[in-house]
Amino acid sequence: MKNMCLDELWLVAPKKFPHAEATARASGADDILARARVVYSLDEALADCVLVLGTSARPRTIPWPRASPRESAILAIEYSGRGPVALLFGRERVGLTNDELERCHYWVQIPANPEYSSLNIAAAVQILTYELMLARGSRDSSANQGGHEHAPASADDIERLFEHLRVVLVEIGFLDPDNPRQLMRRLRRFFNRARPDTMELNILRGMLTAVQEQNSKRKD
Amino acid sequence: MKNMCLDELWLVAPKKFPHAEATARASGADDILARARVVYSLDEALADCVLVLGTSARPRTIPWPRASPRESAILAIEYSGRGPVALLFGRERVGLTNDELERCHYWVQIPANPEYSSLNIAAAVQILTYELMLARGSRDSSANQGGHEHAPASADDIERLFEHLRVVLVEIGFLDPDNPRQLMRRLRRFFNRARPDTMELNILRGMLTAVQEQNSKRKD
Repeated sequence: MKNMCLDELWLVAPKKFPHAEATARASGADDILARARVVYSLDEALADCVLVLGTSARPRTIPWPRASPRESAILAIEYSGRGPVALLFGRERVGLTNDELERCHYWVQIPANPEYSSLNIAAAVQILTYELMLARGSRDSSANQGGHEHAPASADDIERLFEHLRVVLVEIGFLDPDNPRQLMRRLRRFFNRARPDTMELNILRGMLTAVQEQNSKRKD
Repeated sequence: MKNMCLDELWLVAPKKFPHAEATARASGADDILARARVVYSLDEALADCVLVLGTSARPRTIPWPRASPRESAILAIEYSGRGPVALLFGRERVGLTNDELERCHYWVQIPANPEYSSLNIAAAVQILTYELMLARGSRDSSANQGGHEHAPASADDIERLFEHLRVVLVEIGFLDPDNPRQLMRRLRRFFNRARPDTMELNILRGMLTAVQEQNSKRKD
């Protein structure tokens, strides 16, 4: 939860707290554990919550409003302006009881293998807090940078690259100047797909020039 | 991974395998562990993969194509029709080395708290496999293939291309064999971004061979 920018942990009637193993496992997130609020009933934990989202692996006795992790995250963000929102997780082995699940506005069901559907609690927390972080409008950079370090090469520069490439390919006998179309078209598509930046363009131009220099040495 | 409907686990040079603790922790998923493929090098693991997605928490020496978990899942589904796709995870403490990361087409970065950004491996696997499960469910059959006409080149073929390129660049005096790293890394990134298909790979190999032939004529 600390990885996903959450910091309010409430523990309802923990068997033992603080617990040396929990502290050891918390590693760099022990600050969150140290500040955890311990309460003795679920009522106390949920008292002022405006939205309660509870995780449930199994279909229960009666239908209940359900939400996927992604929908839950959107709901959580919507309601968070109005008051505290709770993500409620059950016990490692048995999850939440029916009574506890009926305290929830929605049951969150994590899509999973129907043959092996029960996630452990750490995995469930990870998925829900991850979706919450994304819904918060965080840094899921939908603007993929493609690993470009420099400004993209201009269309002009790329045309000059293709011309240079064409000349070199003719010089080394790889391209028939009388029938260049198909090969140059394939290379164009290939290089366009990679969208060279200015630095890469300079490297490619430098390689072509090095080939030409070798070639002219041969002729001398 | 079993929760998220994945079942092909490859282990690269595990310190100890099988391992009693691993088997115990696998619980109902021990069938996957029992069928895990053990190999001794990353090359072996990635040999026929058409797409390699590697997780990386830290920014590395040079920028590389990046993808969010959601984007990675969409890419993985797109490419999975054409050959094996690898999700590559590093060691628990130190992740993947730079050399290992350079074998990846994309670095997957999980959005996280900038003050506490390093997820443990189980958490990273959970998020990526979860996104993969969702993307599989919403697979669009008309997925854009990125303008590829032929099957994507395999990781092995691409390694041979890089080696050929390196040899030629040394031969023409463009690459200093004593200090090749930065240039080769930039070229690797560039070609990975373009994702050559088998036809394009043959063209590129042919161009390199033509350069070598010119070069050997000069020496005669």
